[in-house]
Amino acid sequence: MVYDIVIIGAGAAGMTAALYARRNNKTVMIIEGEQFGGQIANSPKVENYPSIKEISGAELANNMFEQIVSHGVEFDFGEVISVNKEGEIFTVKTDSSSYEGKTVIIANGVKHKHTGVANEEQLVGKGVYYCALCDGPFYEGKEVALIGDANTALQYALLLSGYCKKVHVYTIMHKYFADKALVEALEKKENIEVTMGYILTDLIADNDGKLKTLKFKKFKEEYEGVESFSVDYPALFVAIGQVPDNKRFENLVEINKQGYIVADESCTTKTPGVFVAGDTRTKSVRQVATATCDGAIAATAACLYIDQLNK
Amino acid sequence: MVYDIVIIGAGAAGMTAALYARRNNKTVMIIEGEQFGGQIANSPKVENYPSIKEISGAELANNMFEQIVSHGVEFDFGEVISVNKEGEIFTVKTDSSSYEGKTVIIANGVKHKHTGVANEEQLVGKGVYYCALCDGPFYEGKEVALIGDANTALQYALLLSGYCKKVHVYTIMHKYFADKALVEALEKKENIEVTMGYILTDLIADNDGKLKTLKFKKFKEEYEGVESFSVDYPALFVAIGQVPDNKRFENLVEINKQGYIVADESCTTKTPGVFVAGDTRTKSVRQVATATCDGAIAATAACLYIDQLNK
Repeated sequence: MVYDIVIIGAGAAGMTAALYARRNNKTVMIIEGEQFGGQIANSPKVENYPSIKEISGAELANNMFEQIVSHGVEFDFGEVISVNKEGEIFTVKTDSSSYEGKTVIIANGVKHKHTGVANEEQLVGKGVYYCALCDGPFYEGKEVALIGDANTALQYALLLSGYCKKVHVYTIMHKYFADKALVEALEKKENIEVTMGYILTDLIADNDGKLKTLKFKKFKEEYEGVESFSVDYPALFVAIGQVPDNKRFENLVEINKQGYIVADESCTTKTPGVFVAGDTRTKSVRQVATATCDGAIAATAACLYIDQLNK
Repeated sequence: MVYDIVIIGAGAAGMTAALYARRNNKTVMIIEGEQFGGQIANSPKVENYPSIKEISGAELANNMFEQIVSHGVEFDFGEVISVNKEGEIFTVKTDSSSYEGKTVIIANGVKHKHTGVANEEQLVGKGVYYCALCDGPFYEGKEVALIGDANTALQYALLLSGYCKKVHVYTIMHKYFADKALVEALEKKENIEVTMGYILTDLIADNDGKLKTLKFKKFKEEYEGVESFSVDYPALFVAIGQVPDNKRFENLVEINKQGYIVADESCTTKTPGVFVAGDTRTKSVRQVATATCDGAIAATAACLYIDQLNK
């Protein structure tokens, strides 16, 4: 069959698109390569989803999934390999299947870049975080560590400094790669302490499996200072970048240098019938609330596109 | 005291902005002139809020309100009369009070234009609706009526035609004021029937207080056809426009011909420190999910602005 809409990615954006599409009586196939819910499913506690005081990311994701299934969304697991348009029909190939759609919504999200040091994966959600907006408030009044040197890292540091006792920032080079205004704001904060020229080498857990110790070493031989050191903090915020994964869509959409799909809030792309929603597109604030917004807009646009196809 | 952020309007956008601001430890005063929750509070059943299968609009609004109060947001009831900037401080005057803020987020929403005929207000949510996206799906398989002649009306008619048995559209003039593509799409739908040249004059309820009968009369003497007629449908969708109310902010923001505050998804305005969120700004899809998005973005931008003020 030819689906009205094939959605690539079942995070908050993709699932909201599915919800809106089904509410408009369109047939929907949603394909997910990793886990339903996307990044939010890894957040131990979500306090910033409007109307819900507190919920685990996994539960929030599960509620979204149950909601779309109750509306008759079809789904499949698989890694999307390619999307091609022939006539007015798109063919979406996964590593195990193939689906046809009148429209495609790309909502594959991004991944926070990980450091790659030992124990990092086991400590995710147990002291190691990638989103200060989401998880910072749980460390109110505490001292925390942060690694990163660009806009997101500095924004995170400023946000954390509003309620954390102290924010210890570590950069690997002896400079920032961030907007001047952010650097100036950061330098004026008394409870932000920056240590430059060091790279994270180890993360060590306590007996409960929570983050205890962070080890750093000098990034370049010629830098001054001690060769290496260890510090104990209950939380490390890793802000070393996001990794979109959009090369496979380059035949259909414009991709910027960082790998994001170029689109404004209309969620449209250069290919009629191809829409984009959520973290994978160019945007400033990547949150569940901004992803669901995109999902609603992309699906509404896709529905109107289909209605105007008159097929 | 000088608040970090004064938010004008406590709909989904304003309350989400308050949530994000408090999570960033900013002091917040939120001012509402009518009802906390804004337009959504009038929706009898909300099925398109991501992660919640079904909830009344009033309950959704109440949950948002309880959430922000639990985060320490201060609030007041009042109609905002003016906002003025002196130095770097904004003064927000209401009909009964005055508040100072380092930033202002305008999230006052819009109102759906009402027809003004007798009984309309008593029938809101009981057969009379202003949002097909929100309330249309409750009339799957039914015949419904719709009044309006512009893009929103035609979009609503197309959406409704996807699952309603028949959509009866009434326009007061003998033409549309809508995009050609929409008109063409509408004309190809077999289950959309358009009656032109008639204006709604009366709404009559059944014994349960639900919409039963709609009365129309010829809009201009010279038009052909019967003088007046009555029809029975369980639902009337009114899509005759939105009414933003932003003249009081014209000293701070750019306002377009329709009265909306001109802003893209960055939610910034021409005045540093003034942000705008939700239905009151220029945008294509006005939904709870798109309003909360704006709230998150506007608050994040306001927090960064405040952090960079260094006060």
